[in-house]
Amino acid sequence: MAKGTVAYKILQSHLVSGKLIPGEEIAIKIDQTLTQDATGTMAYLQFEAMGVDRVKTELSVSYIDHNMLQTDFKNPDDHKYLMTVAKRYGIYLSKPGNGICHQVHLERFAKPGKTLLGSDSHTPTAGGMGMLAIGAGGLDVAAAMAGEPFYLKMPRIVGVKLTGKLPDWVTAKDIILELLRRLSVKGGVGKIFEYFGEGIKELSVPERATITNMGAELGATTSIFPSDEITRAYLRAQGREHDWIELLPDPDAEYDEIIEINLSELEPLIACPHSPDNVVPVREVEGIKVDQVVIGSCTNSSFVDLTRAGKLLEGRKVHPDVIFAVAPGSKQALELITQNGILLNFLKAGARILESACGPCIGMGFAPPSGGVSLRSFNRNFEGRSGTPDAKVYLASPEVCVAAAIAGHIIDPRKLAEKEGIKWIRVEMPERFPYGDEAIIEPLSEEEAKKVEIYRGPNIKPLPEFDSLPESIDGVASLIVGDNITTDHIMPAGAKILPLRSNIYAISEYVYHYVDPEFVSRAKQVRDSGRANVIIGGENYGQGSSREHAALAPRFLGVRVVIAKSFARIHHANLVNFGVLPLEFVDKKDYEKFTLGDEVLIPDLIQRLQEGKEIIVVNKTTGEEIVCKYNLTPKQISVLMAGGLLNWIKNKQKVGVQT
Amino acid sequence: MAKGTVAYKILQSHLVSGKLIPGEEIAIKIDQTLTQDATGTMAYLQFEAMGVDRVKTELSVSYIDHNMLQTDFKNPDDHKYLMTVAKRYGIYLSKPGNGICHQVHLERFAKPGKTLLGSDSHTPTAGGMGMLAIGAGGLDVAAAMAGEPFYLKMPRIVGVKLTGKLPDWVTAKDIILELLRRLSVKGGVGKIFEYFGEGIKELSVPERATITNMGAELGATTSIFPSDEITRAYLRAQGREHDWIELLPDPDAEYDEIIEINLSELEPLIACPHSPDNVVPVREVEGIKVDQVVIGSCTNSSFVDLTRAGKLLEGRKVHPDVIFAVAPGSKQALELITQNGILLNFLKAGARILESACGPCIGMGFAPPSGGVSLRSFNRNFEGRSGTPDAKVYLASPEVCVAAAIAGHIIDPRKLAEKEGIKWIRVEMPERFPYGDEAIIEPLSEEEAKKVEIYRGPNIKPLPEFDSLPESIDGVASLIVGDNITTDHIMPAGAKILPLRSNIYAISEYVYHYVDPEFVSRAKQVRDSGRANVIIGGENYGQGSSREHAALAPRFLGVRVVIAKSFARIHHANLVNFGVLPLEFVDKKDYEKFTLGDEVLIPDLIQRLQEGKEIIVVNKTTGEEIVCKYNLTPKQISVLMAGGLLNWIKNKQKVGVQT
Repeated sequence: MAKGTVAYKILQSHLVSGKLIPGEEIAIKIDQTLTQDATGTMAYLQFEAMGVDRVKTELSVSYIDHNMLQTDFKNPDDHKYLMTVAKRYGIYLSKPGNGICHQVHLERFAKPGKTLLGSDSHTPTAGGMGMLAIGAGGLDVAAAMAGEPFYLKMPRIVGVKLTGKLPDWVTAKDIILELLRRLSVKGGVGKIFEYFGEGIKELSVPERATITNMGAELGATTSIFPSDEITRAYLRAQGREHDWIELLPDPDAEYDEIIEINLSELEPLIACPHSPDNVVPVREVEGIKVDQVVIGSCTNSSFVDLTRAGKLLEGRKVHPDVIFAVAPGSKQALELITQNGILLNFLKAGARILESACGPCIGMGFAPPSGGVSLRSFNRNFEGRSGTPDAKVYLASPEVCVAAAIAGHIIDPRKLAEKEGIKWIRVEMPERFPYGDEAIIEPLSEEEAKKVEIYRGPNIKPLPEFDSLPESIDGVASLIVGDNITTDHIMPAGAKILPLRSNIYAISEYVYHYVDPEFVSRAKQVRDSGRANVIIGGENYGQGSSREHAALAPRFLGVRVVIAKSFARIHHANLVNFGVLPLEFVDKKDYEKFTLGDEVLIPDLIQRLQEGKEIIVVNKTTGEEIVCKYNLTPKQISVLMAGGLLNWIKNKQKVGVQT
Repeated sequence: MAKGTVAYKILQSHLVSGKLIPGEEIAIKIDQTLTQDATGTMAYLQFEAMGVDRVKTELSVSYIDHNMLQTDFKNPDDHKYLMTVAKRYGIYLSKPGNGICHQVHLERFAKPGKTLLGSDSHTPTAGGMGMLAIGAGGLDVAAAMAGEPFYLKMPRIVGVKLTGKLPDWVTAKDIILELLRRLSVKGGVGKIFEYFGEGIKELSVPERATITNMGAELGATTSIFPSDEITRAYLRAQGREHDWIELLPDPDAEYDEIIEINLSELEPLIACPHSPDNVVPVREVEGIKVDQVVIGSCTNSSFVDLTRAGKLLEGRKVHPDVIFAVAPGSKQALELITQNGILLNFLKAGARILESACGPCIGMGFAPPSGGVSLRSFNRNFEGRSGTPDAKVYLASPEVCVAAAIAGHIIDPRKLAEKEGIKWIRVEMPERFPYGDEAIIEPLSEEEAKKVEIYRGPNIKPLPEFDSLPESIDGVASLIVGDNITTDHIMPAGAKILPLRSNIYAISEYVYHYVDPEFVSRAKQVRDSGRANVIIGGENYGQGSSREHAALAPRFLGVRVVIAKSFARIHHANLVNFGVLPLEFVDKKDYEKFTLGDEVLIPDLIQRLQEGKEIIVVNKTTGEEIVCKYNLTPKQISVLMAGGLLNWIKNKQKVGVQT
């Protein structure tokens, strides 16, 4: 039951409905929300559709950090929309250039003991400060801003006991890479990872945040550290000691499961192409030439990361054949390294300084050359995500990145250090951070807010309306895919497609673009013939980011059902939110019983869902009947029947139901 | 005759052939070349085709500063190509992030009294240091690297006499805006602008470079300042005093024409949409709200510009509705403002810090919102160049930009200063610059260079081979256009098409894309039937930029002749360079004698060119004969007969002719 754990305590104090028993549906109050611009425009369009006059959270922040290349009017129009929406509805606005949402939120807004819902899968970053921070689709975040609780299945709480002490050249990044090596990208599904033990006492808040951030790659619901004196010192240095509370696990706290990592035994690790769990010791891949190296992203571009990397680089030069870039995680971090001379070290080494933004991590610029090798301090290395389909992306700590930038090839930093006489350094946290809030626009008063006119550029299209779930589904298996399909497969990102995020009509043209370029026209044909598209998937369908466009755009193309061997958590929730029924094979071998183009009938759908019965899917082409189950709470069934969460909320408002 | 002027002296000491009489064809020796990545890949492909083993200039530098967004493999592949080409052929390579070519060249390579040919129209920036610096097509630059002299018509030398003293809040930018106001964007055609008089003594080298840079907007061949003690101090601070020579006009120097500007009478000026000569005093457009403001570009992002702008912004905040960005002109400038605290001022004001690159100036990112107002310290504001077709771009000094960023609207900075108590400041030049050469890769030794293998990504295609001019032309009038066709009409740029610059096969698909989307398929059909495409044009055909792709790509599509009422100078030269015959109507009314699709015959072509006779064009469809003339030097006729400059050079090398 995990009573007495930090996660349990926060859940308990925020519980709106349900019981804290693993697998049971619970609803929790959300204190804070965050959005970023790639998911935010859609979230706010949905929020607007809910007809609420002002956000009902304690704090909501709208960040602009993703779509910052601005090759035409679309991104700046979206930004202008976000700026006016924030003014109108009582939301903080973090201007472009102020930094990556998770980094800035950790620095300026995150609070121990509170809950945060963010429309970005790396929202658990704030777990580094003892906050229960969960990534969700934009619609869930919009609902939370409208005062709705957040519904989820009570996860199992896994205690990760850190013992021993990190050796020199081994860092927080290696702790989470070790977990990924052991557990894989599916290892965290339905779980919260809570860190404890002697080993956490040497980890600063930003280092803890590196670990909770990349817990997302385990598929975990979230990850969390206790709030202790280290947390207090960090908040004090941020001028926010008043936001601190102590939040420790009880001495008799019981975790549903315990994993132990002896930090003393770790060594520098690296994730090889094309998955964050494809982890080996750095020494095993030494010698691979690198074309480019980049330090940045919400995982590893804090003040601590940049300072150590910059110190190691002091007086050294980037290899002539390597392009090396640094993208500071926030304006605050950039200010600090400007003050402490680290930025000069980077410049004098010949580095490119990219904007404080997500940038290369989401394929927004800095693509590698054809077939090139890119080493990054990031959290994801899915195939093609860099913008170059055949690039080979490796993930490691900033320290491993710096070593490769100097050597021109991947090298165990301990070996390079010995050869070059580079000394490992400890980074002291500053007594006081420059708060750096100059690019954060505070909410207007209620009175002033009402006068604000919301700007809408020509690429910002109103949401399509969706109908409710039919009694039975007459469809076509218009796509069959394998295991581990990511949301990048379903709804690609990158510089070309991301600018379309606020235009469902346009972005839908790219659904499954790189997997099956014919899918869209096929799906439209089925949709326009009045039938439903049914997608057949393998294990872990929809892993990766929280982007709801991976559910919304297929729904717009007429996808009403996805039948898979298993689902990733956030995507499963997003499918429900947009009225797409996620079914699972009772017998996974039944996956084989579908061929592209098969006609599919699902009779008595609503009745069976309401009665909790298994669903029978008839393959009309072969005549076979396939039994499917579903992992849906009563609330989710009612959302599905309404045709999605937006309809459900609107219906509820009509009848004046209170939650 | 302009004897005794600085420009005349440099031309005289570099004269290879011809007489220094305005309008006469001259050939001059080129000491240095520069390329950038948007024109450079093609220039080096052409250089490779010339079969030379190593550059024959004193110094050649390959800069990477344009295509730095890297949204896919194309740009980084081009960069990797450029990096290996530089190694192979004895060329300096300035890595991406090191800065804008003109700014870096001024700082680290430009020398008084020398000649520079650059494949970028703003190459005259180096004129701020007493260098004769000319922009040209990539093929001309490739030829110069192969040891060929540069051919041009001797320009008229205009003396610009600066008297008086700039008032506070009036800067170098206002001097060149005043010239543009007086003379218009055509006012400099066929001219060199040479600055002299008491007024130049208060202008630092970077301020002089702002003026010579934007001389390009006058249409001038180049602009130049003397090399004096100010130049010497600048070079000393750059650790390059040994590069200094004194180069002053003789006391009795005679200019072909003199223009006088009394600096004391100037006030802050601004160029309104959509032309750099649409100049008015700032006070006349006060109150216009700005969406974005940006300081940067090769015109105004030197250490001097950034320092003053940052000082004025100290302790102040950017208006909440404005996005304000700074793109430092070079790594050196960024290092300096990091050291002197100016960068912190920008950050604390809430600015975005863009990479040291061309960026927004060429529509590579930071596009304004739809219909938005953007105020920039740049040199061009052509319609659509920002990436947003309906944006309104204004050009002014960095100081006017900062005032608007604070106020949220355009405002005379003197008015804001009075209101806010902002004091004007003088910027002292540093005693010693950080040289910042860490991102410049020096050439290899001849021996090492020969071992280098040149990298070619899949988007880098070898140059097509072109045949020589046939004895008679059998063609089709496959395009008829009106007056003032620009090179942007012929060969569009922008973030979508620029990455195709090293692939003639791919970029040719976009020739006349927005004017007549059917042209390409029509032209290919004609070409593949063994006939020639003939374009019929109006007045001023090919105005605008110097991009040679506007001649090369049509040539690839089989365009062998353009018959127009008149031609813009640089495009006329580019047509000749790629073997396309530019003919002019003797009677402009004959333009009416062509209809799309008419069959055209031009008999006895070579014989008539060689004999200097008018060309008879037969419209076979109507039976009419049209008399055409041409404005070609003997060298140009021989280039045309060879099928272009590349063939001409190869032929010359075969027979061992020396120039």
